[in-house]
Amino acid sequence: MDSLTVTFEDYGIEAPAEAGESILEIAERAGVGIASYCGGQGTCQQCQVVVTSGEVQPKDEARWQQEIAEGGTKVLACQSLVSEDIAVKIPIRSRAGDFTVRGIEPLTGKLVDLGRFGPLTPLTRQFALSLAHPTRDDTISDLQRLRRALLDEDAELEPITIDLAVLRELPQALRENDFEVAVAVSDNGPTRKIAAVRPPAAADSSLGIAIDVGTSTVAVELVDLDSGQIVGGAIRRNGQIAYGEDVISRIVWTQQGPDRLQRMHQAIIDTLNELLSYLYEEHNVESKQVIAASVAGNATMINFLLRIDASPIRRTPHTPPATEMPVVTAEQLRLDIHPQAAVCVCHPAVSGFVGGDITAGVVATGMHKADELSLLIDVGTNGEIVVGNKDWLMCASCSAGPAFEGVGVEAAMPATAGAVTRFRYDGDEDAVEYESVAGQSPRGICGSGLVEMIASLAEIEVIDRTGNINSDFPSERICERNDELGFTLFWPDETARDEPIIIYQHDIENLLRSKAAVLAGITVLLNKLDLATTDVEQMYLAGAFGAGLDVDKAVAIGLLPDIPRERLEVVGNSALAGAYLTLMSRQARQQAQETVSAMTYLDLSSDTDFMDEFIASNFIPHTDLSRFPSVDM
Amino acid sequence: MDSLTVTFEDYGIEAPAEAGESILEIAERAGVGIASYCGGQGTCQQCQVVVTSGEVQPKDEARWQQEIAEGGTKVLACQSLVSEDIAVKIPIRSRAGDFTVRGIEPLTGKLVDLGRFGPLTPLTRQFALSLAHPTRDDTISDLQRLRRALLDEDAELEPITIDLAVLRELPQALRENDFEVAVAVSDNGPTRKIAAVRPPAAADSSLGIAIDVGTSTVAVELVDLDSGQIVGGAIRRNGQIAYGEDVISRIVWTQQGPDRLQRMHQAIIDTLNELLSYLYEEHNVESKQVIAASVAGNATMINFLLRIDASPIRRTPHTPPATEMPVVTAEQLRLDIHPQAAVCVCHPAVSGFVGGDITAGVVATGMHKADELSLLIDVGTNGEIVVGNKDWLMCASCSAGPAFEGVGVEAAMPATAGAVTRFRYDGDEDAVEYESVAGQSPRGICGSGLVEMIASLAEIEVIDRTGNINSDFPSERICERNDELGFTLFWPDETARDEPIIIYQHDIENLLRSKAAVLAGITVLLNKLDLATTDVEQMYLAGAFGAGLDVDKAVAIGLLPDIPRERLEVVGNSALAGAYLTLMSRQARQQAQETVSAMTYLDLSSDTDFMDEFIASNFIPHTDLSRFPSVDM
Repeated sequence: MDSLTVTFEDYGIEAPAEAGESILEIAERAGVGIASYCGGQGTCQQCQVVVTSGEVQPKDEARWQQEIAEGGTKVLACQSLVSEDIAVKIPIRSRAGDFTVRGIEPLTGKLVDLGRFGPLTPLTRQFALSLAHPTRDDTISDLQRLRRALLDEDAELEPITIDLAVLRELPQALRENDFEVAVAVSDNGPTRKIAAVRPPAAADSSLGIAIDVGTSTVAVELVDLDSGQIVGGAIRRNGQIAYGEDVISRIVWTQQGPDRLQRMHQAIIDTLNELLSYLYEEHNVESKQVIAASVAGNATMINFLLRIDASPIRRTPHTPPATEMPVVTAEQLRLDIHPQAAVCVCHPAVSGFVGGDITAGVVATGMHKADELSLLIDVGTNGEIVVGNKDWLMCASCSAGPAFEGVGVEAAMPATAGAVTRFRYDGDEDAVEYESVAGQSPRGICGSGLVEMIASLAEIEVIDRTGNINSDFPSERICERNDELGFTLFWPDETARDEPIIIYQHDIENLLRSKAAVLAGITVLLNKLDLATTDVEQMYLAGAFGAGLDVDKAVAIGLLPDIPRERLEVVGNSALAGAYLTLMSRQARQQAQETVSAMTYLDLSSDTDFMDEFIASNFIPHTDLSRFPSVDM
Repeated sequence: MDSLTVTFEDYGIEAPAEAGESILEIAERAGVGIASYCGGQGTCQQCQVVVTSGEVQPKDEARWQQEIAEGGTKVLACQSLVSEDIAVKIPIRSRAGDFTVRGIEPLTGKLVDLGRFGPLTPLTRQFALSLAHPTRDDTISDLQRLRRALLDEDAELEPITIDLAVLRELPQALRENDFEVAVAVSDNGPTRKIAAVRPPAAADSSLGIAIDVGTSTVAVELVDLDSGQIVGGAIRRNGQIAYGEDVISRIVWTQQGPDRLQRMHQAIIDTLNELLSYLYEEHNVESKQVIAASVAGNATMINFLLRIDASPIRRTPHTPPATEMPVVTAEQLRLDIHPQAAVCVCHPAVSGFVGGDITAGVVATGMHKADELSLLIDVGTNGEIVVGNKDWLMCASCSAGPAFEGVGVEAAMPATAGAVTRFRYDGDEDAVEYESVAGQSPRGICGSGLVEMIASLAEIEVIDRTGNINSDFPSERICERNDELGFTLFWPDETARDEPIIIYQHDIENLLRSKAAVLAGITVLLNKLDLATTDVEQMYLAGAFGAGLDVDKAVAIGLLPDIPRERLEVVGNSALAGAYLTLMSRQARQQAQETVSAMTYLDLSSDTDFMDEFIASNFIPHTDLSRFPSVDM
C-alpha cells in the first residue's frame, strides 16, 4: 500500500493516507471537520474543498464534477480519491464542525434516577484494602489474601476471577504498596473479575464512562462511580459516517475489502478516543482513572465496536452474530481508559434491528416495571418501537431513514452550532421566525426544526397533504432547480453559508417517508395487539429529537399518533441514560438482561399491513384524518 | 545486546546467542543435548566441550579450568561465557542425550482409573452440532443459536461464555460450514467457555494433553478425550535446569535481570513444545487437534509456566503469588496446541512448597476418599508428604534436594538410556551385578540404582552407618581424588564413557541428606499427629523412583520407614496421573479443588523436632535401629 500525505493547509495538519482513500475519509480520520450529511454519497454537496497542490482521481466518472476556484480546483471531498501527495483548503462554509467534539449538559431527571435500583453497584467497584501481611501463621497466597479481603468487604463478589495479565502484576503490586492497595473489581456477568491492583491513592477517584454509539452521533458521559454524579458529557459525529450513512451501507462497505472491517472498527474507536480526550482535558482527568465503560448501541454498531463481522444482519433473515456480548477489556479494543477496565455492552440487543440502544431506553424509562401501557419510540437513523408494561413487551423496527438526524435532506444538519431548532413561517415574504443552536446564523436545520418546518409549510399550504410543493403559492421563495421545485427557507444574507437554505421536493419526500415509517410501525404494532392509540397511557419519544421538540407539531405532521399531549414525553437520549444506569447498578444490568429475554420481536419488513399503513401514512398527517381529531386541517 | 552465533559442529546447528550466556544455556535453547546434572554449577564435570574456534570467558575466575584438547580447548560448557562467535564440538561422552525427548509407556492401573469419577467430562468437550438455519421465524443470533444447540446437548453447560476472539470468527465459521459445526467447549471453572467453532470433521478427533512440569523432568501424555485412552507419552529434562537445579536457585536467577523471568518462562514453553512436537510426529497428530491441556506441577514451576514472578516463594514466609490459577488459552502461553485450547492448572497448590503435583498425587491415589490412613511421599527435587484419609489431610515439605533425581551426585543421571537402575556388589573384585535402561553400557546411575548402590555398599561395609567410605576396605575399587575417598562402581572398559564411574564421599553425603530429609519429614508429621509408623495402613511412594525400585532396599537405607511391605506401593508419576484424571473428568477437577481446601500445611522449615530428626536420620538407616526391626544391620 502506498503511503501518501494529505496536507490540510488551514489546520497545518499533514495526514497520512493510502491511495484510493477519499479526502473525506482522510479528513475524518485526521479529525479535520468537513461537513457531510449524505454519508459520502456525493449528494449533499456539503463537502466542497479546494485542492491547491497535486491531483485527485474521481470516485465515479459519471458523477464527477470539478471547477477552477481561487487557489486551485474545487471538488467534493467524498468523491475525490488520492493517488499522490496533495494539499487541500477547506472553505469556511464547508467546515461544518461536524466531527468536532462538543460538550453536552449532563442528563437529569427520571431517566437517570438511580433510586429505582437500590444501592449503587457500579460495573467496576473499587475497594481500598489493607491486607494482612503474610506471616508464618498466615501463608496463604497473594491471590487468596486479596480474595479473602474482598469477600470480607462483600461476600456476594463470589465467584471472583482474575485475568493472567493482572495476576502477573499482583505480587509486585502488593509488595510495592506494603499490602495497602486499591482494587478494582469488575462485574463480568456470571462472575466478578479483579481488574486492577494499584497504589491506595487510586481508590480516591473511580470514574466510568457511559457510551451511546449511535449510527450518526456518538455520545459519552463521564461518571463518578462512587456517587453516580455525572462529571461531564460530550458528543461527536460517528466517524464511520464517511463509510456510509446507515447501517446497511456501512455493512456493505465492510464487505468490499479484507481490511475494511478493521477500518470501520477503528473509526468508532477513534471517535470514542477523541470524545474521551476532550473529557479528560475538560475535567482534568487521566485515562487510568476510568475503570469501566457501559455501552449501548444498535446491533451493527456494537458488532463494529467489537470488530465482529456484522454482515449477517444485512442478509435475510437478518440474524446478528450476537445480541449479548462478552465483557472485554479496554486493552482489547484500544479504548483510551484503564487497560484492564471492563467494557460491557450491558444492554443486549433483541434482534438485528432492535438493538441495545432500545432496550436501554426501556430500562431508562422504566416502562418494563410500569403498570400502565407504555410506548417508546426511538427515532434515530432507524426507528424502533417498544410497547408494553411490566407483564409483557413487544418491539419492532422500521427503516425510517436518517432524514430527521440530518442525513438525506440537503438543508439538514445535526443539532450543532447554527442548526435551526425552531421554525415558523406565516407567509410573510420578509422573514421566518426561528431559533438556532448557540443563536448563530442558520447553517442548516436539525430534527426538531425540520418537524416544525413541515408543519408550518403544510399549515399555510406551501405544501399539500401529500407533501407536494404548491408551485402556485404566491411567494418568491418558491424556486426550481433541475425541474425540481424548492422553497427558500433562508435567503443568502441570512445564513452562515452565504447561500440560501432551500428545502427541495425530494427532501420533503424523504422526511415524509421517515415519519410515515415511524407512524406505520406504531399503528401496525398496536393493531397486532388489538390495541388502539387511545389505549396508550404513556408514550416516550426518544432519539434524534431533543427536549425542544414541539409535540403538537410532531402530531400535526403525523410523526406521532394523536394522543393526549400529557401522555406524551420527549425524553431525549434514553440510550445514553440506559448506559449510565447499567454503568452504576447491577440491578439495572440484570433488568437489562431480563427485559431482553422478555421482549418479543415483530418483523415488519415483510408485513403487508405495514406496507399499506406506510403508504397511508405518507400523507400529512395521514389519509385517515379521523385518527387525528386534534389536528385542524 | 550483542547477537552472536555459536556453531555446534557435530550437529550442523548455528545457534543465536547473546554475550554473557554460557555455552550450556545456548545449547539447551538450541535443543543440543549436553550432559549436565548439577544445574550448571560447575561441579558435576559432565558438560565438557571443545571450543574449536573463537574464545570464551570464564564465568568464575576462581573455578576456571581449561586444557588443550584435540582440535581446540576443552572447557566446561556451563562455566564458559560467550563474547564472540565460536564453534564447539561435543565429545560423545558429554552428549548425555539429556534434553532428548524420549517416549514413555502410558500410565496404567489404579492411578488412572477413570471409573472412580463417573461419566467422562473432559476439560474440553467437543460437540458435533447441526444447527437450525436462521429463518424469518427463528431469527435469534448466531451465538444464541449455538448456545441453544449446546444446551440441548447438555443443560449443565450453563453458564456458558465466549471470548471475543472466538466470537469474531463465529459468523463465518457457521456459514462456511452451512451451520454444521464441531464446537469445543472448555470447562473454565465457574463457567464453561466456547473455545472453538470448526468444520464438522474436527469433531472426529478430540485430543488433550496431560502435563507434569517437574523441576528436573517434564512428562506429557497425549490423550483421546472421547475415550480417555492414552495415545502416547514422552519425557524430557526441564530446559530450565540450565538456570538452576532447584526452585530456589531458579527463582534467584530470575531476579538477576529484567528479562530473566521471561527467559525462564520461555525455557519451559520450549521444553513442552519439543515434547509436543515429538508426540505429533510419533502419533501422526496435528497441533490443532489438541484442544485441552491439564497441568500439574509445584508452585514455582506453575508460576514460571504462566510467567508470574515466583520470588515471594523464596522469601519468608514463602507465600506463593497464587495457588489456584486462571484458566488460560494456549495462545496466551504460545503453547503449540490449538490456540484457543484451555490450559488449566487443574490441581491447585496448597502452599509455596506443597504444589499441585502433590495434590494431583492425592487425587490419583484416591487417599482423599479412603477409609484407611494413607501416606503419600513424592520424592522429586523436593520431597513432599501427605498423610490422612477421607476425613482429613495434612501435608509438609522437606527440601530433600535432587540427589535421587540425578543432580548433585557425580555418577548420577536420570533414568534414560545407559542409566543403571539395579545395582548389587557382593565384594567380588571383577564385576558388579546391574541392570540398565535399554540394556546399554553404564553411563551413570539413576534413582533406584542409587538406592540399591547405597544399600549394597552399606551391607558389605564399604560404607559405615554414617556413610563414611571405609579406606581400609580391601579392594582396588577404593580410590582417592583431591583427598576425597571414592569407590569405583564401574571400570572404564565397562562404561559408555570410557571413564570409570565412581561414587565419592560427598555424593554419598548428598544422598543421605536427601533420604534423611524425607524420613525426618514423615516421622515428624506423624509425631505431630500422635501417630506411629505402624498406624499407616497404606503408603504410596511417588516421584523420581520408577516402579523398579526395590522397596526393601529403600527401607534398608532408611529412605522409607519400616512398615510391612504389603502396605507399601511404588506408584511412579502420580502427578502426571492426576493431570490425566483432571483432563478427563470434571468430578476429578472438583475433587482436586476440594482436596486442597481440606488440606492443612505444616511448615517444617523452622521446626526444631524436624532438625533433630533430620540429624538422626542421616544414619543408615537411622540412629535408632529399633525403628527398623526388619533391617538386619
